[in-house]
Amino acid sequence: MKLISQKSISTLYVLLLTFALSQICFAAPRHEVKIPDIPGYKTLKCDFHLHTVFSDGQVWPVLRVEEAWREGLDAIAITDHLEYSPHRTDIRPDVGRSYEIAKPSAIDKGIILIKGAEITKNMPPGHFNAIFIKDAKPLDNNDFNVAIKNAAEQGAFVFWNQPGWKGQQPDGVPKWYAEHTSAYEKELFQGIEVVNGDEYYPLALKWAQEKKLTLMGNSDNHDPISMNYDFCIGQHRPMTLVFAKECSEVSIKEALLARRTAVYFENNIIGDEKYLKPIFDKSVQMLKSEIEFKGKGKASVRITNTSELDFDLIANGSPEHINTPANLKLNKDSTVMLTIENKDKTFSGTENIRVPYKVKNLIIAPDEGLPVEFELKIKFISAEPGKK
Amino acid sequence: MKLISQKSISTLYVLLLTFALSQICFAAPRHEVKIPDIPGYKTLKCDFHLHTVFSDGQVWPVLRVEEAWREGLDAIAITDHLEYSPHRTDIRPDVGRSYEIAKPSAIDKGIILIKGAEITKNMPPGHFNAIFIKDAKPLDNNDFNVAIKNAAEQGAFVFWNQPGWKGQQPDGVPKWYAEHTSAYEKELFQGIEVVNGDEYYPLALKWAQEKKLTLMGNSDNHDPISMNYDFCIGQHRPMTLVFAKECSEVSIKEALLARRTAVYFENNIIGDEKYLKPIFDKSVQMLKSEIEFKGKGKASVRITNTSELDFDLIANGSPEHINTPANLKLNKDSTVMLTIENKDKTFSGTENIRVPYKVKNLIIAPDEGLPVEFELKIKFISAEPGKK
Amino acid sequence: MKLISQKSISTLYVLLLTFALSQICFAAPRHEVKIPDIPGYKTLKCDFHLHTVFSDGQVWPVLRVEEAWREGLDAIAITDHLEYSPHRTDIRPDVGRSYEIAKPSAIDKGIILIKGAEITKNMPPGHFNAIFIKDAKPLDNNDFNVAIKNAAEQGAFVFWNQPGWKGQQPDGVPKWYAEHTSAYEKELFQGIEVVNGDEYYPLALKWAQEKKLTLMGNSDNHDPISMNYDFCIGQHRPMTLVFAKECSEVSIKEALLARRTAVYFENNIIGDEKYLKPIFDKSVQMLKSEIEFKGKGKASVRITNTSELDFDLIANGSPEHINTPANLKLNKDSTVMLTIENKDKTFSGTENIRVPYKVKNLIIAPDEGLPVEFELKIKFISAEPGKK
Amino acid sequence: MKLISQKSISTLYVLLLTFALSQICFAAPRHEVKIPDIPGYKTLKCDFHLHTVFSDGQVWPVLRVEEAWREGLDAIAITDHLEYSPHRTDIRPDVGRSYEIAKPSAIDKGIILIKGAEITKNMPPGHFNAIFIKDAKPLDNNDFNVAIKNAAEQGAFVFWNQPGWKGQQPDGVPKWYAEHTSAYEKELFQGIEVVNGDEYYPLALKWAQEKKLTLMGNSDNHDPISMNYDFCIGQHRPMTLVFAKECSEVSIKEALLARRTAVYFENNIIGDEKYLKPIFDKSVQMLKSEIEFKGKGKASVRITNTSELDFDLIANGSPEHINTPANLKLNKDSTVMLTIENKDKTFSGTENIRVPYKVKNLIIAPDEGLPVEFELKIKFISAEPGKK
Repeated sequence: MKLISQKSISTLYVLLLTFALSQICFAAPRHEVKIPDIPGYKTLKCDFHLHTVFSDGQVWPVLRVEEAWREGLDAIAITDHLEYSPHRTDIRPDVGRSYEIAKPSAIDKGIILIKGAEITKNMPPGHFNAIFIKDAKPLDNNDFNVAIKNAAEQGAFVFWNQPGWKGQQPDGVPKWYAEHTSAYEKELFQGIEVVNGDEYYPLALKWAQEKKLTLMGNSDNHDPISMNYDFCIGQHRPMTLVFAKECSEVSIKEALLARRTAVYFENNIIGDEKYLKPIFDKSVQMLKSEIEFKGKGKASVRITNTSELDFDLIANGSPEHINTPANLKLNKDSTVMLTIENKDKTFSGTENIRVPYKVKNLIIAPDEGLPVEFELKIKFISAEPGKK
Repeated sequence: MKLISQKSISTLYVLLLTFALSQICFAAPRHEVKIPDIPGYKTLKCDFHLHTVFSDGQVWPVLRVEEAWREGLDAIAITDHLEYSPHRTDIRPDVGRSYEIAKPSAIDKGIILIKGAEITKNMPPGHFNAIFIKDAKPLDNNDFNVAIKNAAEQGAFVFWNQPGWKGQQPDGVPKWYAEHTSAYEKELFQGIEVVNGDEYYPLALKWAQEKKLTLMGNSDNHDPISMNYDFCIGQHRPMTLVFAKECSEVSIKEALLARRTAVYFENNIIGDEKYLKPIFDKSVQMLKSEIEFKGKGKASVRITNTSELDFDLIANGSPEHINTPANLKLNKDSTVMLTIENKDKTFSGTENIRVPYKVKNLIIAPDEGLPVEFELKIKFISAEPGKK
Repeated sequence: MKLISQKSISTLYVLLLTFALSQICFAAPRHEVKIPDIPGYKTLKCDFHLHTVFSDGQVWPVLRVEEAWREGLDAIAITDHLEYSPHRTDIRPDVGRSYEIAKPSAIDKGIILIKGAEITKNMPPGHFNAIFIKDAKPLDNNDFNVAIKNAAEQGAFVFWNQPGWKGQQPDGVPKWYAEHTSAYEKELFQGIEVVNGDEYYPLALKWAQEKKLTLMGNSDNHDPISMNYDFCIGQHRPMTLVFAKECSEVSIKEALLARRTAVYFENNIIGDEKYLKPIFDKSVQMLKSEIEFKGKGKASVRITNTSELDFDLIANGSPEHINTPANLKLNKDSTVMLTIENKDKTFSGTENIRVPYKVKNLIIAPDEGLPVEFELKIKFISAEPGKK
Repeated sequence: MKLISQKSISTLYVLLLTFALSQICFAAPRHEVKIPDIPGYKTLKCDFHLHTVFSDGQVWPVLRVEEAWREGLDAIAITDHLEYSPHRTDIRPDVGRSYEIAKPSAIDKGIILIKGAEITKNMPPGHFNAIFIKDAKPLDNNDFNVAIKNAAEQGAFVFWNQPGWKGQQPDGVPKWYAEHTSAYEKELFQGIEVVNGDEYYPLALKWAQEKKLTLMGNSDNHDPISMNYDFCIGQHRPMTLVFAKECSEVSIKEALLARRTAVYFENNIIGDEKYLKPIFDKSVQMLKSEIEFKGKGKASVRITNTSELDFDLIANGSPEHINTPANLKLNKDSTVMLTIENKDKTFSGTENIRVPYKVKNLIIAPDEGLPVEFELKIKFISAEPGKK
């Protein structure tokens, strides 16, 4: 196959000049993802599982960078399949090429592009991504153990992809096989996808928390993101939130190895309490927390949520002296009223009262929402004089 | 370049089975374009200018079919550049391949896929698309006259692309060169793009109407359509509307040669009055056209527009006896009120009154809207008894 | 209270002229509700439960007509509370006034305005609407039985409102009391709200079907509709669909008495099978129902849904010879693919095959979706020659 | 007119209890307006011109507070017409009542409600709003001069409404009459509406700046706001931005008298440069302003706009050494790239370069955009060694 055609270089040069002008079609704005940094760390928005025409994807690698820019991501890894190249009739199979092709655009846009590849085996052990690799070739080996060991030798961070994918687990339930135990005990993989595309695997979350695997949530997109997620109704691809010391490739790797991640999936964040708590605290402010009840019944405080999630709260016990709603929705980018009712009109005194809720969509374990509290300082003035 | 890798066919087969399941991600609904058929012809929605990774596009050919399905198109042509292959390091240059790769998907979805290629020269003569070709290779010739003649020999329909493109005409104004006269006189091209992407060339419209060239309007998309057009605010790619005897490739070609087309661009349709008039008439209904004025001033009739265009009307002369609004907007997919006022309260009698407007965004010539009339039957009963 | 102020009529007249101009702010388009007529009847979109400032509503009566126009309704009834007038300090209590004030605007816009009032008692018997009344005053009686009888004497159509409203049934479950039996046996009410605002009462549906009461679904709006329903994400108020011989007040009353109604609620229609079946049949078309299988596995047919509901279908038994999806979503205003798989590649012959589904959101009884069938004509050509 | 009906108080009491539950329908979230505070002042979002059923509006006063809450306003004035009461047949004319009725709701939601009224005369002098009044009655006088003097005696802030309203100026151009000079010279009004509803009067802006009148921009809404502005495509009512020392009624009045306002209208802010400049500076950040050119051509810097306006910039002179785009759009709530090109590849040295633009939609005078500059520190390394 002759890759430079017979036409003269000079003709090509003229055409290239002409076409330079047409490349400015990509000047779209970037929408930042509104999930705050947490104390000590930046909250980087990442997608570590993406395909291009170099395996079975539908897009040229440069597009993955443009999408990341528009959607507010900080880092991506293109992870084309090593063993599966349905476009091989037309495209020279070389998993490393997607990285090389996308790199200049990533530099221009300030997107961190991480070199990766997908080791694609039948179940068990299924599919694994290796990222921060140097050379994809040694990972393309029929023997999974050889492939994954070669990744380790390059210093790769390796994670198990979509463990409950129906293509390999028809009932959708992830299963942990001897092959996984073997690789896990040799520390040949460090993470697991708790979310892949539109699937969430609570069992993978449980394993990750028990076995100290890093939580991953990625899109695994083959098509353009904009054909799978409807931005105009607020949809977004799943992302791995990485709590990194700074916005750099080195810091991302350090954070992944230190298990400082969470998963942003639909209207949920999934992760350890120690990361979800500061996200909530930075997102939600009670505007004025001092109330005075003169006997009668009702008052309200304003609560503002500056994040892009709608937080769904459910009461987690009853506060003293007052009634508060059983359910509370803190809409994204909005202020809502928390209405408070005095239970006992004859009580008087000033009290610091804690109102306990669970945030259903900040998931700290399977079916377990993040516990939070609002603190109020309430001055009760008895409606019946002389009573306390 | 060895295109089948060393891995055993049986491994590949297992993987293929596994992956079959994952291909169902493309099950999106199709939104029909709401522009009606006209008497005697179906109004087919077509885009005859599209790129893929096989020239300088960002997408795999199959995606062009999926997009056409979702966006309600009936026919597309993929027209990769013959002379410009920036991906040649990785992709075997073969303009014919995009058609072959996309064809099975087109059959499955019922999209008419027309084989095409873009002859890509500096100006003059600029870029030309040849569609309904049999073999792209003979068109890849440094000599434009040879290339276009070879297209003609295959029975191709050829049109001049984006004549005012700033990449070749920095002032954005199309220019007609001797090269164009020469090819035109030999009947080597039959159409011209009046619209390309987000550009509309009124001068090209004038030429097309004078020289009996077929009006074309195409997207020329290199990226995914969904990254350039925001469907949620009603944006759509430009389309060539083809008035065809039936929904088939043969009928489309017959219609193109017979100049039965118009161009759907943003909130406009551009074309000859004989095609735009029936589109308006089929889209707009006056629900009840009989009115009675008993001396006093006002009445209203409802007008429904079932198309997806907002029609912008401006008065085109004054009707007798009544006042009607100087401007009238017939919103898409809606009913609006046309308010009518009796000019002379003393007049009596029953009259058929024509209310003349021009539809500014049904463009029948540069800066010329389609003239239309609403017919009302009005019974005037004089407020002053005995007067007529 | 002197209702005409001391200022001279001539001053008032000048101001009135001036203000006439400012009234044109209401020139919004009307969006038709896309639910088809059924054989023999027009499907009228109605809301028979609305409030204004004349009881505890937040809007002037004229606004109810403007809203009906914009939202594509054919008929409304304003039904202010007879016994509850919290604005009485400022507004002369007169339930009949809302009708009189709104009437001219209703005539102008072609909205059928039906005179009504809400009889507002504690539970039992709760709240009842009387519509098609002539005079609201006789219905304002402390004794429910007197009130409802006086409505009957005016030829009113009376229905029980929101039987499960938490303001009167804290558990949200409607209860049928002796008072209801008594009024029902005397035929003093003919309908029941199965839907009120954002509440749906399946038990009321069961009662209505057993006792031959007319199904009603209304908004009961006190605020502007646009503050409670977000049109831009497709929300709409609940509506009573009336299957009327023509679009007139007389026909609506005849249809209500004949129980020819259904309820349009969120993405559901609730009603008897005999009305829901033709709505589905008129909304959904299979574009081509003939398929040929040459041994191998897959084919697809296009199904178009022209209504504004997304129909959610679930398999209702297995068709012979072929596999079809367990779930099928027919998106509103769209075309989707129904993918069919040949079960037995060796079978040959031509068969008419019925594919049975239930439409979950066309509710013909509590928790019971409408059964429908798609008919396919399939020609099977055996992959193994000589076999049938 | 007997305002309390014959029904016993006890019945009424039971009904009131029942209805308390139904009032919770107003629990919508509040969307904050994203226009920043400026140094030393809070940017309060205000609408000082609103109508209710107490003059010719379509809504009950309480609704004006709910709308203000939802739309992120800090303060409103209800300003019903004193001289125009088309609902007088049904509603006791009393312009002061709208304030009293809305007040409890305003307290509950933390909206500052300012007492106001509209003095409604033919042109000249036209319509004037008086706000911060104590009693509306003395303003209801046929003699404009008496009315406005009585307002002044109450310490009111008075402004001229919609000076170019077509109801009074058919050509849409405001005219300054002797009556205005007279009142202006007596300091009987202090402000003027530069924007009213969907109208902007550049001439009023010129007068305001010459005569030191306070700039006002208000909705003058008669209908529900949600029926005139489509929030889902980002529309908002016009607002007067008040730069106040704190969020209180007293501070608003102080700021109005000190002319510290601007007008937020569609995608524009209109006002003095000293207020618009800090709004831009607080809204727009250049993320990294140091660039290095090693001979070759291009680099880009990211610019983030956290406000809710799309800023439209046009070049205002040419920077030294570099080319920058003639037009730049800083999309709301987004980051965009500013692409910079090295003009002279042979130049070397480190320079602080200013890139001057005008922000077309930050209007500091009729047809005059706000001048702004971006500062870049650029290190040029010559492509030709030895040259500086």
